[in-house]
Amino acid sequence: MKIFNKTIEFQTKGLFDFIDITNKVINFVKESQIKDGFVNIQILHTSAALIVNENEPLLIEDFKENLRKTAPQNLTYQHDDLTKRTVNLCPDECVNGHSHCTAIHLLVNATLNLIKGKIQLGQWQRIFIVELDQSRERKVQIQILGV
Amino acid sequence: MKIFNKTIEFQTKGLFDFIDITNKVINFVKESQIKDGFVNIQILHTSAALIVNENEPLLIEDFKENLRKTAPQNLTYQHDDLTKRTVNLCPDECVNGHSHCTAIHLLVNATLNLIKGKIQLGQWQRIFIVELDQSRERKVQIQILGV
Amino acid sequence: MKIFNKTIEFQTKGLFDFIDITNKVINFVKESQIKDGFVNIQILHTSAALIVNENEPLLIEDFKENLRKTAPQNLTYQHDDLTKRTVNLCPDECVNGHSHCTAIHLLVNATLNLIKGKIQLGQWQRIFIVELDQSRERKVQIQILGV
Repeated sequence: MKIFNKTIEFQTKGLFDFIDITNKVINFVKESQIKDGFVNIQILHTSAALIVNENEPLLIEDFKENLRKTAPQNLTYQHDDLTKRTVNLCPDECVNGHSHCTAIHLLVNATLNLIKGKIQLGQWQRIFIVELDQSRERKVQIQILGV
Repeated sequence: MKIFNKTIEFQTKGLFDFIDITNKVINFVKESQIKDGFVNIQILHTSAALIVNENEPLLIEDFKENLRKTAPQNLTYQHDDLTKRTVNLCPDECVNGHSHCTAIHLLVNATLNLIKGKIQLGQWQRIFIVELDQSRERKVQIQILGV
Repeated sequence: MKIFNKTIEFQTKGLFDFIDITNKVINFVKESQIKDGFVNIQILHTSAALIVNENEPLLIEDFKENLRKTAPQNLTYQHDDLTKRTVNLCPDECVNGHSHCTAIHLLVNATLNLIKGKIQLGQWQRIFIVELDQSRERKVQIQILGV
């Protein structure tokens, strides 16, 4: 059994930036030379998420419109009330209660089957990171375990 | 370590068809003779999804009602505007922006623990494929990795 | 390859009780002495779920407010109509159609990468069980597979 991992880092452009990382995952699977097993893709953030769906530019606009309603930005979030908050405060604190609330409706990890050297993805399935906060540096970790 | 996989294919009956595949998964686990490891169930589509929850017919009606609101079919989706769209067009293109928008709120894969020959499911947990589009041919892939 | 599993049991306090199990998971990873592999955390219930996000008390209040809208408790759920229902009835049956409908929007399992003895979690990522029903006994299963 072999295990390999890789962390991909990138800068998102802002709220609802969708970054298609499918080719990076496929290339890492090839490099690993693991033929059969699982590929686990994990996001390391709480105000960004994973989406596995179609990469069609108009559909991505639809996703954004839908996610705006999942946790509307114009509601009041207690997390953003710095007069009350005492926990987990950091220098680059930003107004992002809505980002976390959207994130819990999406994926933190996706485990995909690896069979005969090919990561299994349906015809239209692509792997995205979606930024739910403002422009930030983000990390996604890919780990492959198999033979 | 052993790895086995199987693809289940079926025809869904239409929007919100819920297909309980639990017994098919349990049978494949038995056939595999793997006793301890992980069972990963992955859907290979972007307008259908996985749900792990209770199989109670009235509750399934409640799920449908809830999912209708997750991405209402009567809203306008840019993905369905064939006067604007230029990408990923195929002969059987159908009006399904709402289907993709619902799918991103549900599961693409479920990784379930396999212990002493038994896939771990709570008393009421059943594994469903849910059709979010019209009647279509669908594939679900099960991969078991363990000893 | 080694595999270890552990089931954590606890009593929730009621609707939207958030229980942070991160330290229990980290401790079990240490005990297992597995260094590289996957940690799969699976909930065994259909009216409770997993959330991986930040443990900030005001944000948890925001999550509750958001989840109340995901499947409002004051709507009518057919699952709760005991004049119509004939399936899966049990002695401790409670009015929980909304609980199941919220659960399908959240996680049933989370597979996290284990690298050099450390479960991979971003700076703010914590693992929660969230009760979506009334106070109940709940079980979460952790399985680690690796070397």
